Amino acid sequence: MDYARFFSDDVPSFLRSPVREIFRKVDLASIYSFAGGYPDASTFPLAEMEGLTRRVVEKYGARALQYGGTQGVTELREIISQRYNVPLERVQITTSSQQGIDVCARVFLNPGDVVLTTYPAYLGALQSFRAYRACVQPLADRLPLSDSGKAKLIYIVPDFCNPSGVTMSLEERQALVEFARREDLLIVEDSPYRELRYSGADVPTIYSLAPERTLHLGSFSKIFAPGFRLGWIIAEPALLEQIFVCKQALDLCPPVFDQYLAAEFLGSGALDRNLERSISIYRDKRDYMISLLEKYMPAGVSWTHPDGGLFLWVTLPEGIDTVAMYDSALAAGVAYVAGSFFFPDGSHRNTMRLNFSYLAKERMEAGVQLLASEIQKVTRKEY
Amino acid sequence: MDYARFFSDDVPSFLRSPVREIFRKVDLASIYSFAGGYPDASTFPLAEMEGLTRRVVEKYGARALQYGGTQGVTELREIISQRYNVPLERVQITTSSQQGIDVCARVFLNPGDVVLTTYPAYLGALQSFRAYRACVQPLADRLPLSDSGKAKLIYIVPDFCNPSGVTMSLEERQALVEFARREDLLIVEDSPYRELRYSGADVPTIYSLAPERTLHLGSFSKIFAPGFRLGWIIAEPALLEQIFVCKQALDLCPPVFDQYLAAEFLGSGALDRNLERSISIYRDKRDYMISLLEKYMPAGVSWTHPDGGLFLWVTLPEGIDTVAMYDSALAAGVAYVAGSFFFPDGSHRNTMRLNFSYLAKERMEAGVQLLASEIQKVTRKEY
Repeated sequence: MDYARFFSDDVPSFLRSPVREIFRKVDLASIYSFAGGYPDASTFPLAEMEGLTRRVVEKYGARALQYGGTQGVTELREIISQRYNVPLERVQITTSSQQGIDVCARVFLNPGDVVLTTYPAYLGALQSFRAYRACVQPLADRLPLSDSGKAKLIYIVPDFCNPSGVTMSLEERQALVEFARREDLLIVEDSPYRELRYSGADVPTIYSLAPERTLHLGSFSKIFAPGFRLGWIIAEPALLEQIFVCKQALDLCPPVFDQYLAAEFLGSGALDRNLERSISIYRDKRDYMISLLEKYMPAGVSWTHPDGGLFLWVTLPEGIDTVAMYDSALAAGVAYVAGSFFFPDGSHRNTMRLNFSYLAKERMEAGVQLLASEIQKVTRKEY
Repeated sequence: MDYARFFSDDVPSFLRSPVREIFRKVDLASIYSFAGGYPDASTFPLAEMEGLTRRVVEKYGARALQYGGTQGVTELREIISQRYNVPLERVQITTSSQQGIDVCARVFLNPGDVVLTTYPAYLGALQSFRAYRACVQPLADRLPLSDSGKAKLIYIVPDFCNPSGVTMSLEERQALVEFARREDLLIVEDSPYRELRYSGADVPTIYSLAPERTLHLGSFSKIFAPGFRLGWIIAEPALLEQIFVCKQALDLCPPVFDQYLAAEFLGSGALDRNLERSISIYRDKRDYMISLLEKYMPAGVSWTHPDGGLFLWVTLPEGIDTVAMYDSALAAGVAYVAGSFFFPDGSHRNTMRLNFSYLAKERMEAGVQLLASEIQKVTRKEY
């Protein structure tokens, strides 16, 4: 039967994640993958899971398996509130920080509304904004907006941006806040990597500069484990209230058992110990990755030097097309994400995003060598 | 600052769940609650959680804590596929069956589109449909639709309906399918209670009668535990494909660790043993609840006799207003959900939904007595 008539007007705007499509078809373990945003599995508290479960069951009993409040369980909200020094009523737990983005899109955006962002931009955010038929525009020059009635949100990943790896300076953040105030815009500050800093000094959050108009999104995926699908939003109660009502219809409440596991992991101090270990693993991998790029990449290839997070951004000589070379690279056994996927207009085809967190360190050299030789093949063809 | 200009045109249609509002303000343990749809905590496999966690960690290792596929983890999808005898490609795991409803609303409904349903209707579904500004209309007479271009979905809870407790007969299901085929409508069959049958014989699912146009929604909340927020959709791959793409932007993937716990709980046979025990607990509670209603309710009060599920539906004498008497009942220590909340027009104010699963059996008699005396108070006033 033909289902075409049933689909909503939003459906043609649904954007398929090329990253998720790769994972649907390829067994990650069989290739050298610099593609996904997967954390290093050795940072997961696998050995602690049984003990965490026992303590959650002992402490919370049946409450840990029952329905919970839509705002999230109070124990976890309190820990977030203390850890980030914000009042409890400003903390909403979300079922993944992706849901944080999506619920902001749902609560704030009408078709045609404008979201301003920097490019390259996080694909999952582009998916959410596009799915509500919002118009995503570059936040390039911060000039007065010609049609500011339609502009509502700035979406930004200020710390170790996915995909670029770049961090905004304090001055850039202050200028952004000034612009948001002048144009009366809300800021969605998506900061899942903030606690994964390997060098340099912390920069204040945008939320701390403009708490009245910023929704700060956090994630447990990189500091606990992504398999729990937990994140949080810190924002004005008046904004959270509508998100709360919206979330009732989305999934009633975030996963309760996982929230208690997270509360126990954070509350016991295990998270901070684990985080210190993770940072040291990732710092080492970042340094190693950059040394491998320096060793193997042909002339004319450059990359960012991230102070944290999971990604760096590679720029190849003009004329090289990372979308066109993708199948051949994958067939050779190495995966990346073509940079043009992070631009709504599909431009910047000579760029790619490389993840340095997932691949085991002992496999990184072979992976970078393979990637470099794939790049060399097309460089030779082009020049 | 004034946030009014930022909210989307959908926000004024967001419906606040009166049930969730009760839970926000009242400590459930301090009252006799017949209000929520909470399972009996004694049915939760609390004692097995530590062993489940150990086996999941042993079997799946880091995969259990890593990101997973958007469709859900294959091991769990395979178990659902075998248990309900449907092909694997027809199984999508959802982050709660509420998300199953919401994603159907998101993928199929434009503002103004019509959803047909029976009343009283599940509140969470009304919340989702209303939030997309769909028009919910009664499926009363199954006459040819006057404006069938706008009608897209039938939403129905055929087994032990929340809130009425009523189950559709095979003949009713066949007539519904015939109507759906004649009018070219999709059917969302929401059946979270299907496996909780205490008496009578199973009736075939609507999905089995019309697999080409039915999206069957299942839930782990009542057969495992609601704290995991896991459900599934069984439907045509062509329908699931759009739901898959939509779900990427909603939360990337369902909770992975919880999915492996569920796979282990089902795959090991523990679920079926636990389910048998749950059914016996709930059958006993249903029978006891009905005997208490017979014993204490004043004349003129009637109720449904559900063959399964968690609810029964009480009709009081005309003129009694369960919304108006609610605060006084809660102050006296007993909670229910006013029936009019399950009607979009707020009618049927002399009805209420009673849950018989949550309250401990030894507290049920005092709870029903208290409720009966509250009803008697207003009955005396009215007559």
